[in-house]
Amino acid sequence: MTAPSLSLHALPGIPMVQPGDDLAGLIGDGLARAGLTPQAGDVFVLAQKIVSKSEGRTVLLDTVTPGPEAEELGARIGKDPRIVQAILGEAVRVVRARPGLLIVEHKLGFVMANAGVDQSNVDGRDGQARVLLLPEDPDGSAQAIRTQLTARFGVPLAVVINDSFGRAWRRGTAGIAIGVAGLPALVDLRGNPDLFGRILEVSIIGFADEIAAAASLLMGQAAEGQPVVLVRGLRWTAEESTAQALVRPAAEDLFR
Amino acid sequence: MTAPSLSLHALPGIPMVQPGDDLAGLIGDGLARAGLTPQAGDVFVLAQKIVSKSEGRTVLLDTVTPGPEAEELGARIGKDPRIVQAILGEAVRVVRARPGLLIVEHKLGFVMANAGVDQSNVDGRDGQARVLLLPEDPDGSAQAIRTQLTARFGVPLAVVINDSFGRAWRRGTAGIAIGVAGLPALVDLRGNPDLFGRILEVSIIGFADEIAAAASLLMGQAAEGQPVVLVRGLRWTAEESTAQALVRPAAEDLFR
Repeated sequence: MTAPSLSLHALPGIPMVQPGDDLAGLIGDGLARAGLTPQAGDVFVLAQKIVSKSEGRTVLLDTVTPGPEAEELGARIGKDPRIVQAILGEAVRVVRARPGLLIVEHKLGFVMANAGVDQSNVDGRDGQARVLLLPEDPDGSAQAIRTQLTARFGVPLAVVINDSFGRAWRRGTAGIAIGVAGLPALVDLRGNPDLFGRILEVSIIGFADEIAAAASLLMGQAAEGQPVVLVRGLRWTAEESTAQALVRPAAEDLFR
Repeated sequence: MTAPSLSLHALPGIPMVQPGDDLAGLIGDGLARAGLTPQAGDVFVLAQKIVSKSEGRTVLLDTVTPGPEAEELGARIGKDPRIVQAILGEAVRVVRARPGLLIVEHKLGFVMANAGVDQSNVDGRDGQARVLLLPEDPDGSAQAIRTQLTARFGVPLAVVINDSFGRAWRRGTAGIAIGVAGLPALVDLRGNPDLFGRILEVSIIGFADEIAAAASLLMGQAAEGQPVVLVRGLRWTAEESTAQALVRPAAEDLFR
């Protein structure tokens, strides 16, 4: 069930997203500009930032009052205690704290820097400092957008919301899936024969994470602003699952 | 410098690779079968297994004599001590050992399960159990194949050798780059303005890892056998670097 080829298209002209914006509508407009018509099995990968912005997940830093833990931790790692407070508000535990670095377990289970609390690309033209949080329920967001897109275009489509995560033993970030709807986040090949008819013992593929990383190649991190990528040509047979299936439970984890 | 679209093509009909096989030749044959002509900037992603096989990195298990550490560790984690010996021979340290699980630091710096020592898809039709090791110098292998391909086709091309790695906090594997030639393994965006003209503070992208993950979507892990993927449409301006640039030095690492 592996495809022979894939194409990825960044949708052109997606505007700056504002709270309340209809992402399915913006995607439809971008498709029209690109001259693309959705086909069954197309996957839309959306940058976390536009989903968070459309959901109004922006926090004005002046409205944040750091508690004692945020004050202490901020002083220790050299970070604005209001930002630390915003991070702690999103986290269930601090995994590592070092000067300039704060890795936490997000309430959604993701082990990540700064709980995804982001200062870049958040419109501060009014002079007010803002941060952007992850969507409250990215799997739910993906499902909602998928439902709208599938209804609009009349073919089954899938949605992945991606973000750039650091990795424990690798330098640089890679795109990973924080929200998934309409495809298997994990593909379990255990029980599939390998080329010699043996059974693969351990082979579970982070399918949605690989899709997220592929789309990230087109999104750009800085001024390019290509936050929606259409991935065409993927095939799958495994059951659909959400991005939560990609979260390694703390009980299985040897590194937190 | 972000591209508007990408295409990925798995080259058809790549045969079972044998020691000494000319991979550039096999790639040329696959391109011809697919009706593809290489263009400047095309990236060829090769599965580690075919590179290792072409380099004869197969070990007959009967020729491995486990030392005392391999015997003890094998008994403790429930793994054939000859395989454990092969793993330890490739490793500089054991990072975690649990029943059924052995995570080590490979001598190339990769923190990975089983030092990449692999029992699947290794031809054992003669009844002799074999394992396959990583290439001795995957960056060198990538460079050698790149030189041959560039000479053969007369345009600058890049090569990535990928493998599927587990991740600390995520379930499932994702493709990562163990060898890179002809492109920047890491792209450092620090100093690039974001959409609002601020300077991105920390943004270093594991470019080659994202390419590796994208290609992995087409390779399949089991019986599909599509070990070479052409990625077309990537753009970059950063300086070329090797996959070693993606290895987080132990001194920077908080999780080993």
